[in-house]
Amino acid sequence: MTYCVAVKTRAGLVFLSDSRTNAGLDQISTFRKMIVYEKAGDRFMALLSAGNLSISQSVREVLQIEKLVEPGQDEPLTIWNAKSMFDATRVLGAAVRRVYERDAAALRASGVEFNVSMIFGGQIGSEGMRLFQVYSPGNFIEATDETPYFQIGESKYGKPVLDRVITPNTPLDEAAKCALVSMDSTLKSNLSVGLPLDMVVYKAGSLQTDRIMCIDEHNPYFQMLRSSWGDKLRQMFDSIEDPMWNGGATDVPLMVPAARNALLKKITTPDEKLI
Amino acid sequence: MTYCVAVKTRAGLVFLSDSRTNAGLDQISTFRKMIVYEKAGDRFMALLSAGNLSISQSVREVLQIEKLVEPGQDEPLTIWNAKSMFDATRVLGAAVRRVYERDAAALRASGVEFNVSMIFGGQIGSEGMRLFQVYSPGNFIEATDETPYFQIGESKYGKPVLDRVITPNTPLDEAAKCALVSMDSTLKSNLSVGLPLDMVVYKAGSLQTDRIMCIDEHNPYFQMLRSSWGDKLRQMFDSIEDPMWNGGATDVPLMVPAARNALLKKITTPDEKLI
Repeated sequence: MTYCVAVKTRAGLVFLSDSRTNAGLDQISTFRKMIVYEKAGDRFMALLSAGNLSISQSVREVLQIEKLVEPGQDEPLTIWNAKSMFDATRVLGAAVRRVYERDAAALRASGVEFNVSMIFGGQIGSEGMRLFQVYSPGNFIEATDETPYFQIGESKYGKPVLDRVITPNTPLDEAAKCALVSMDSTLKSNLSVGLPLDMVVYKAGSLQTDRIMCIDEHNPYFQMLRSSWGDKLRQMFDSIEDPMWNGGATDVPLMVPAARNALLKKITTPDEKLI
Repeated sequence: MTYCVAVKTRAGLVFLSDSRTNAGLDQISTFRKMIVYEKAGDRFMALLSAGNLSISQSVREVLQIEKLVEPGQDEPLTIWNAKSMFDATRVLGAAVRRVYERDAAALRASGVEFNVSMIFGGQIGSEGMRLFQVYSPGNFIEATDETPYFQIGESKYGKPVLDRVITPNTPLDEAAKCALVSMDSTLKSNLSVGLPLDMVVYKAGSLQTDRIMCIDEHNPYFQMLRSSWGDKLRQMFDSIEDPMWNGGATDVPLMVPAARNALLKKITTPDEKLI
C-alpha cells in the first residue's frame, strides 16, 4: 500500500508521501511516490501517486510529454504551457487515459484492475494555488476551504488528526507538522506503509521551493515528533478522568441513573426469548 | 457500517459498539449490535456483530437455541452448558454456519455476499476470561497478550489510540476510556458510524455485570471526553515544535544538511528527462 497526503492552506501547500510498495507481504520494496515539476518563477507542481505502480510510473513518464490537442487551440496543451492548474490537471487526466488505452485491456486479461489515484497541486503564474485529486478514469475533484486536504492510499488511520487540526488558516509549518503526525499514526498501525518519507512544502506565491526533503529514520525532527506524540498522547489520555460508574463524586458520570435501565438486551437464562 | 471494539486486559473485558446501520447513505437506521448472555455466578458472555444485519440478527436468534451435536457427547453443546469459552464460541460458529446453510444461496442469487463478523468474549466458571473474533465461515481466532483487542467494522480510524494505550496491564476503567476515545475518533471521521453507543464492562472473575449502559449524545462523561480529547489533542499538537527549515536554532532540525540533496526527483524544464 501507500499513504500520501496533501494539504492546501492560505499559506501554502504541503505534500507528503511514504515509499513502501508491496505485492503481497513477502515482496516489499521502496519506490518514490512523489515528483515535483518546477519552472522557477513560472510554475510549481507536485504529483503524488498510489495504486498500481506500473500504471503510476507510466503516467508520470507520459505526463512529461503529454500534449492535449483540442479544437480551437493553436498549440497543444502541456503541463509546461498550461495557464491554470485546472488545465494542467486536465493534461494529467489525459496522461492517465493514454496509459489506460495502452495497458488496461492487457491488465484486465490478467485479472488486474486499472487502479491508480493521484494528488496533483501547485501554482501557475498569478493564479491562486490549487489542489486536485485525480481518479483512475482521469476525472478529478478540487480541494476547497471546507475540505482543504486530500489523502490517497491507506488513508483512514491518519484522518482523525487532519480533521481536528487543518483549516484554511493553518500556518504552513503547522500544516507540515500535522501531515507528519498523520503519517506517524499510519506508520504505527499499518505495516504496508513505510519510511523513508518524501516531503515538499510550498509557500503561496513563490512559484518554486527548496523545501524538498527525504525523511528517513535518522531525521532528528521526525524522531522527536514520533516519540513526543506517543508520550504526550499517553499523558493526555491519562489526564482525562476515568469513567465513574456508581454515581460517585464526579460532575461527569458515565453511568447516569436514567441509563441504567439499559436498552441493551441482556439474556439471563436459556429459556428467555431474544425478541 | 459499524464500529465495534472489545478489549481484554488482566482486569476484565470492555465491549463497545455503535448502533448505525445503513443500506446506502439515504437509508440509515439505528440497530443495536451488542447482546449479553449472562447466568449470574455461572457464565457471562457478550456478542458484538458487524456485516449484513439480516445475517447477524439471525445468528443472534439461532445462537440462543443452537445445539451442537458431536460424537461421544452425551448432551448437545449450547452456550448455556459449554464448559469453556472456546466451546461456546464453537457453538457460535455452528450458528453462523446454520444461517449460512439457510440463506447464503438465496443471497448469492441476488448478488449479496454472505458477510458477517463478530466479537465474542466472556468467562465461564473457573476458566480465565477469553475473547474471540468470529468470521463469516464460522472460524475464529483468540485475543492474546500481544494482541489484547479486536475491532470489527470501520476499524482503522480508531486503531492508533488502541495501539498506543492498550496492554494486558491496562486497568479496566482506563481500557473503557480508551475504547470510548477510539470510538470518538471513528465517529468524528466516518458518518456511517453513529450514536447511541452500547457499552459493557466486565470485571475478571465476577461472572456477571451491572456495568451495561447505553451512551447517547446527552451522556455527561462522553460529552466531556469528546470535547476534552479534541481540545487537548489540539494543545498537544501545538506543544510540539514546528519544523525548522534552515538549520535554525533547534536541536531537532527537519531539514538536515545531508538531506537537502533530496533523492526526490525534481523536473525543472520540459526537456529534462524523468529517468
